[in-house]
Amino acid sequence: MYGAAVAYSGLVEKQIFEMPGPFRTAGGGVVERVRVGFEVLGELDAARSNAILIPHPNVASSHVAGRYGPQDALPGYWDAIVGPGCPLDTDRYCLIGVDALCNPKAADGVTVTTGPSSIDPATGRPYGMRFPTICVRDLVEVQRAVLAHLGVTQLHAVIGASFGGMQTYEWAVAYPTSVARIVPVISTPWVGAYVLAKLRELRAAIALDPNWNGGDYYGGAQPVEGLTMALRLLYVAAVLTPEGAEASYARRWADPQRDPADSFDNEYAVCAWLDALARDRAQVVDANNFLYTQRANELFAVGGASTLKDGMRSITAKALVIAARGDEILPPSFARAAYDALVEQGNDATFFEIAGSMGHLDGVLSIAQAGEAIAAFLAR
Amino acid sequence: MYGAAVAYSGLVEKQIFEMPGPFRTAGGGVVERVRVGFEVLGELDAARSNAILIPHPNVASSHVAGRYGPQDALPGYWDAIVGPGCPLDTDRYCLIGVDALCNPKAADGVTVTTGPSSIDPATGRPYGMRFPTICVRDLVEVQRAVLAHLGVTQLHAVIGASFGGMQTYEWAVAYPTSVARIVPVISTPWVGAYVLAKLRELRAAIALDPNWNGGDYYGGAQPVEGLTMALRLLYVAAVLTPEGAEASYARRWADPQRDPADSFDNEYAVCAWLDALARDRAQVVDANNFLYTQRANELFAVGGASTLKDGMRSITAKALVIAARGDEILPPSFARAAYDALVEQGNDATFFEIAGSMGHLDGVLSIAQAGEAIAAFLAR
Repeated sequence: MYGAAVAYSGLVEKQIFEMPGPFRTAGGGVVERVRVGFEVLGELDAARSNAILIPHPNVASSHVAGRYGPQDALPGYWDAIVGPGCPLDTDRYCLIGVDALCNPKAADGVTVTTGPSSIDPATGRPYGMRFPTICVRDLVEVQRAVLAHLGVTQLHAVIGASFGGMQTYEWAVAYPTSVARIVPVISTPWVGAYVLAKLRELRAAIALDPNWNGGDYYGGAQPVEGLTMALRLLYVAAVLTPEGAEASYARRWADPQRDPADSFDNEYAVCAWLDALARDRAQVVDANNFLYTQRANELFAVGGASTLKDGMRSITAKALVIAARGDEILPPSFARAAYDALVEQGNDATFFEIAGSMGHLDGVLSIAQAGEAIAAFLAR
Repeated sequence: MYGAAVAYSGLVEKQIFEMPGPFRTAGGGVVERVRVGFEVLGELDAARSNAILIPHPNVASSHVAGRYGPQDALPGYWDAIVGPGCPLDTDRYCLIGVDALCNPKAADGVTVTTGPSSIDPATGRPYGMRFPTICVRDLVEVQRAVLAHLGVTQLHAVIGASFGGMQTYEWAVAYPTSVARIVPVISTPWVGAYVLAKLRELRAAIALDPNWNGGDYYGGAQPVEGLTMALRLLYVAAVLTPEGAEASYARRWADPQRDPADSFDNEYAVCAWLDALARDRAQVVDANNFLYTQRANELFAVGGASTLKDGMRSITAKALVIAARGDEILPPSFARAAYDALVEQGNDATFFEIAGSMGHLDGVLSIAQAGEAIAAFLAR
């Protein structure tokens, strides 16, 4: 049996894949037992030629669209473009999401992943920082194993946002004959100095929390403050724009009775909002897993190349490159550089820019703007 | 005697001013004894009408230009536009810099300031977080006292970068009949939600360091890691641009022998550069003082107004508003909004934009680009 297809309008089921043997990372590490979750929407056609792989953004999961049950408050992150007749048409395509190795949301009760928070069979204790470093290529290999399990060897497309977009580039370089189309959204094939400097601080925030304890906090006090700060920094970089933040919060106080001028404990509304968001999310995020996927972001240069153009050279897939206008963490200029490289080397490439006031996150929340462009691209 | 004038081409002398009585802050706090340093370049004319006040950026001091001695490695921060015949012409104007209250560089051996790191006469121990909150208006009042001491009541101009620029706006609103011209550089009259969210993380980094200990670290272990992280966050926001960082560092490793893929301890060159810069600066910065001036930035809305336009209304000074094109922490759109408000209400205002690859810091390092505009503005 292949993954049971579930129509978007129905309920979505998390399935679990376990690799048949030890997994060797690109860096030479070995993980004895890799288990990851995956979700399937739509059905594979007879030729198994209609599969679309959807690698997810960093702090997300294989839950692309739909709900697990009628009680679910929110559907998957790209629900707005998934369903019968939608750009990611579940009557036409078989959509496959896979939980990333070291998925940060390891503690959300739904995501299934293997990483630092998993038990090391050799010791019976969580790996912690003894888990081998992972990179984007490792995620691609795990996804490839899931696809093989489903009997899929050819991909109609790989489409993904942010970290997921990096995986679309890596797929196109690693397996050019398997990937017909890529749709990298709010992403880049080249994590340069600007992004490296910003991402490093997310890791630094966790390391600064004494509860982190070199990664050995399992069974003890959790590094909640450091992790919350790391997530706030992520949201500051990925959600705030000067115009959007001002329109929503301006200089309002978190509590109208408590003037920030009176005490350092009195905050502004924008800060309280970000803190609540981060603190809530921190409850389901494992700090070490977050460190590992952040590091995988940092380690990413497509194909391991030493320049962007060198990396792009072996891409043969058609590409629809999508950027978000107000994105500060992976600015549109990065997506534009990738698009330009593709055009220069003669690829079939299209560029689309999403408008909005949520910065990087417009690539998730405002994806419907790109719906027609995605539908047309997938159909040709 | 007034502050002895020292020509720029000669050596600059730090002078000390002590307020004659207790200082009451805008928030109602009382500081028994305020001492601040100041520096004077050029001479006051007979009418005392040629004084230009230069409030400094946050992590800087009254040392605008020149050197303290022949051994000094670097001159003051705006040396490029200060001197005989220069835009800030020391043959023509008397330039006055004043060390801010709570100046972060309290530990550099030169800056003279009063703040959390100072001894509280009531206890004989450093104030720590018991020092009263300060705001931009408080800095203006201390400067006003220094000017009174020098016999200056009318200012030809107030010119300042970043935090110093906020003080130029506040001067124009608080004492419209005393200020003929303002030159806010890479600044804003309105610290909105976007900036509030970013600045809060600088404070959070310090608070996360267990050595900070609620501000009582004097005589014990210093919160070096938290302060270093805060300064790195500041540099990430104020120095890095996508293009500038990529051109200088791309994905180079800090140590060519140590691949970041092999260990979390192996860093990229851009991160090592920022860390070295921050770690070096942290040696002369007091963490609590830094918290206080950051907070003063956050508290700033010119004149305490509830909208930018309301705040600008009482400004009568001519204004030259200068922005830096790649500035991410106080983007040119902020300076442009201030300029637009001035024009709309009929003020004599000019806008100038500096190009460069150092973001916010171009307002300091590339100020020479604005030299002619400054000279012309000051002369009319």
